[in-house]
Amino acid sequence: MSKPLQVTVDGKPGSDSWPLDRALQYGDGLFETMVVRNGRIRFEALHHERLALGCRRLNIHADHGAIWQQVGELVRAHGSALLKLQLTRGDATARGYAPSGAERPRVILSVFPAPLAADLPAQIRAVTSRHCLGENPDLAGIKHCNRLEQVLARASLEGSGAFEGLMGSSSGQLISGTMSNVFLELDGQLVTPQLAQCGIAGVMRAVVLREAALAAVPVQVARIPLAALARCTSLYLSNVRLGLVPVHELDGRSLKPGAALHALAERIESLEQ
Amino acid sequence: MSKPLQVTVDGKPGSDSWPLDRALQYGDGLFETMVVRNGRIRFEALHHERLALGCRRLNIHADHGAIWQQVGELVRAHGSALLKLQLTRGDATARGYAPSGAERPRVILSVFPAPLAADLPAQIRAVTSRHCLGENPDLAGIKHCNRLEQVLARASLEGSGAFEGLMGSSSGQLISGTMSNVFLELDGQLVTPQLAQCGIAGVMRAVVLREAALAAVPVQVARIPLAALARCTSLYLSNVRLGLVPVHELDGRSLKPGAALHALAERIESLEQ
Repeated sequence: MSKPLQVTVDGKPGSDSWPLDRALQYGDGLFETMVVRNGRIRFEALHHERLALGCRRLNIHADHGAIWQQVGELVRAHGSALLKLQLTRGDATARGYAPSGAERPRVILSVFPAPLAADLPAQIRAVTSRHCLGENPDLAGIKHCNRLEQVLARASLEGSGAFEGLMGSSSGQLISGTMSNVFLELDGQLVTPQLAQCGIAGVMRAVVLREAALAAVPVQVARIPLAALARCTSLYLSNVRLGLVPVHELDGRSLKPGAALHALAERIESLEQ
Repeated sequence: MSKPLQVTVDGKPGSDSWPLDRALQYGDGLFETMVVRNGRIRFEALHHERLALGCRRLNIHADHGAIWQQVGELVRAHGSALLKLQLTRGDATARGYAPSGAERPRVILSVFPAPLAADLPAQIRAVTSRHCLGENPDLAGIKHCNRLEQVLARASLEGSGAFEGLMGSSSGQLISGTMSNVFLELDGQLVTPQLAQCGIAGVMRAVVLREAALAAVPVQVARIPLAALARCTSLYLSNVRLGLVPVHELDGRSLKPGAALHALAERIESLEQ
């Protein structure tokens, strides 16, 4: 069995190949959300690296040189922007979950207005989410397109006034926010969750860890029980769109920006790569 | 931030809305694979029920009457077929994981040739997969479009000659095959895995449980450690495409079709609803 005999979309004959795209069918693809500043992608090499890792894990054979050349052309046309790159495995060539290996990856680039500092609320509130993240080392770390867990967790924040929801794994470990990684000051130490079982290893997280090492600020990558949130003294969220930003209120409790994380945030703000 | 300022697909201007579809972006949708026989969908009411449950869980507001009317028209045009219904949340109306609530669900129907008994190998071999299923009660049971776990597990079977791979959860419970549910004869009892933490509650699984109850054949729905596979005396796979079929060899060990499951399989074969 290979291609369908007939396809309809909303009751009309389907005339294009999108319904066959395996990202549409199974979330079989990867994405990167990138900040374009001064005509360049910030931390571009780290985005290359994560996309390449995702392709190795999912066994998607893409021409990375051609992809980043295409991205470069778009970036030069926009001095500043938020750019989403989606790489799908391509159209299914056979029915069922198994890729045939004959798929041709599809590259989708979407340009959004550049993020503005003014988009951030003056006081960032976070809450512990009641939704969890399933554990699967095959999928941990990479930015693949199976994101229903985040969709449900973000949907449940709507109307709560919370900017971010903090998610634990099914075994009760703190992993991340719905759209950010987290850095905590806990028992006098700086820590960020290990992401071997689930979560996305964010580009900004990698930058924070790199800059902390360069500044000789110790940050532990550790297993952190979700319950430890109750005793953290400061908490920061990271992603390329936000940078590294302090949470002011966690589950109704006031938090102070920590000096070490604040200094790292300032150091990172001026970096381009 | 709402719609992108610019979209390119494989380097060309994107002229349609598919790149915005949330199923493509996040696997944000549901599907049903149905067998059409004698101009009708087998076990149609059970497919309605599961799709409706999925919509409730994901908070997708679809007009189910209109969907099934559309399906009915296609079914009448094909006496026998395999029919895939995909229901996506629709095009994103804003950037990010949270649905806005203003999305309009999209219905994709794909018709494939009817499954044939001849598609089945004479000897069905199954192996324990090295891939696992993440646990998340929010997503357990429903047939959503986040299927990378199954994609990776099926890909790893390629070339092995195995028809099915049996998957455990991250906490070591037997859950299902990559494309089927499982029924085992274990310690003299018939059992099938509980699916409260992960897995898809298959329509054929529901039929088997219903028919077993009607035939007064006790089948336990239970937590079953993956390691228990080593001592099962018979093993059957179920899905609407296959029916209920015996595994002849599991991890290199010969299995006999069990009398009770064989009788259930025969009883189900003749059923339409």
